[in-house]
Amino acid sequence: MNTSYVCRLHQAIDRKKSPLVVGLDPRLDRFPAPLLEAARARHGESPAWVRAALERFCLGVLDAVADHAPAVKINIAFFEQYHVPGILAYATAVAEARRRGLLVIGDVKRADIGSTAEAYAAGHLGPGLTADDREEAPGFTVDAVTLNPYLGRDGIAPFMDAAVKNKRGLYVLVQTSNPSSVEVQHLTTACPEPSAEGGDATVAERVADLVRGWGEEAGIENGWAPVGAVVGATFPEQLAALRERMPHTPLLVPGYGAQGGSAEDVRAAFDAAGHGALINASRSVIYAYANRPGSSDRWEEAVEAAAREAAAELEAVRHGSA
Amino acid sequence: MNTSYVCRLHQAIDRKKSPLVVGLDPRLDRFPAPLLEAARARHGESPAWVRAALERFCLGVLDAVADHAPAVKINIAFFEQYHVPGILAYATAVAEARRRGLLVIGDVKRADIGSTAEAYAAGHLGPGLTADDREEAPGFTVDAVTLNPYLGRDGIAPFMDAAVKNKRGLYVLVQTSNPSSVEVQHLTTACPEPSAEGGDATVAERVADLVRGWGEEAGIENGWAPVGAVVGATFPEQLAALRERMPHTPLLVPGYGAQGGSAEDVRAAFDAAGHGALINASRSVIYAYANRPGSSDRWEEAVEAAAREAAAELEAVRHGSA
Repeated sequence: MNTSYVCRLHQAIDRKKSPLVVGLDPRLDRFPAPLLEAARARHGESPAWVRAALERFCLGVLDAVADHAPAVKINIAFFEQYHVPGILAYATAVAEARRRGLLVIGDVKRADIGSTAEAYAAGHLGPGLTADDREEAPGFTVDAVTLNPYLGRDGIAPFMDAAVKNKRGLYVLVQTSNPSSVEVQHLTTACPEPSAEGGDATVAERVADLVRGWGEEAGIENGWAPVGAVVGATFPEQLAALRERMPHTPLLVPGYGAQGGSAEDVRAAFDAAGHGALINASRSVIYAYANRPGSSDRWEEAVEAAAREAAAELEAVRHGSA
Repeated sequence: MNTSYVCRLHQAIDRKKSPLVVGLDPRLDRFPAPLLEAARARHGESPAWVRAALERFCLGVLDAVADHAPAVKINIAFFEQYHVPGILAYATAVAEARRRGLLVIGDVKRADIGSTAEAYAAGHLGPGLTADDREEAPGFTVDAVTLNPYLGRDGIAPFMDAAVKNKRGLYVLVQTSNPSSVEVQHLTTACPEPSAEGGDATVAERVADLVRGWGEEAGIENGWAPVGAVVGATFPEQLAALRERMPHTPLLVPGYGAQGGSAEDVRAAFDAAGHGALINASRSVIYAYANRPGSSDRWEEAVEAAAREAAAELEAVRHGSA
């Protein structure tokens, strides 16, 4: 792998003809009934049934979306909730996504300090235990991760080093898509540089300045930095302002679909070539069958249709024709 | 378990006669050579040797510190770096610590939004998959977790709910112990309430106000809120000011020992009864044998001596007699 993450990402977006990233957020209570029944029938009540159900669902989704999306974002929280069987399924989902040629973003939102951040970076952006080990016991290594900026550079630098060295990527939370993000991210700071609106900058804007600086330091290649940012679609004005503030920063944009962000809201994330952003859709794609009564036997068809639709809608936005 | 986490914590601190929490941060490259050799001899080069070495080290540390510390803080990053074998060892370490009567803080620094935060809360503060599953496959459930505040209340509320319901605890990062914490946490904000120093409040102080409010909302019991805070020993002035700002908030104080914080620096964390804070020491205890040449055969003795020493030093500080 001699190509940078962002370069591979843009190639994949152009090849799949969409900036859609499908979010894999598995919850047993939303799985199709026949899938759950099959897993229980086979494994009884042992924890193995949980792992089997998670893996069956993830593989179904991966098969359904692989032709339509360049990448998947796998949120490890939904696996951690099922303890060890869940984490075993996470490793399987990562390996199977990569085997299908999908780029994998590990939505882990990690951050810690010093040698602890190095440990997280080794786990999620490292080479794996050894080549042999990886085959025997799939690991957590992904193409890019999400990170939390509250600890400053110490929480990010080990991931930057691993990303540059191993041609992987990272997305730092700047503006999250949830309502209470304002409690910390929209605090007004005494800033050396006025924000786009003319007032003082918010915490999110100051973090954006840090992210931009880290990216420039790590080295811009073909116009893009290896350090990306998470900016939610649910704050469209902020999205446009933050894109201007971080012109070389690849964006990962959650909040489209089930959370209420529209295709229109995410237009500002893209450059003229339609590059620079991935738009995430999770529940609206992976649970698409829930809105189609009687479709639980053929749930993968509903997922594929939803992925195809979202991919096409976002492709039109990317090229300014929506 | 009918007693709140903070109540159980204070009982344990009084019983063990120390506010020391030992941080379990395992790194294979710092393990005693004989331990590594034994694990490799038994398991060869398969990933099983990594799990075996981690578990052997953790059990040795747990046995060495169980008489001296009321709690251990297990940092999941150091396990995640070893992928699936590491996570299996994490679950073992959690189970074995609890079996030895130690309170367990899962130092996971998680945060996400909405149903994703609920998933993390279920994984780390929930009841486990089922009682049966827990015996067969140890889970991630701990007595308390560390959390990151960048996403605001949405990232914390599901943990508050789980903590109140299941009598567990949480510590929100307020002021971390690392040098670059200042990049975000010390940004000055336009604050309705002036900080202790008379100027505008910092981001860390505004987060402290949120943490205090969440704690009051969740319900103060015997003078203490169920929502705690992480405040590093490496910023002693901030520690004192933040303790005043959050009078009912249990503190978890890292940065003592290897990171440079002194016993004197942490005095302000305690109330008159010597309650309200746990002081963490990680490397200075668990790798104590590294400073004693030739002791790697009897490394557990060095760990026990270091734990006994740190426990006594902190007990003196707690009672204002150091």
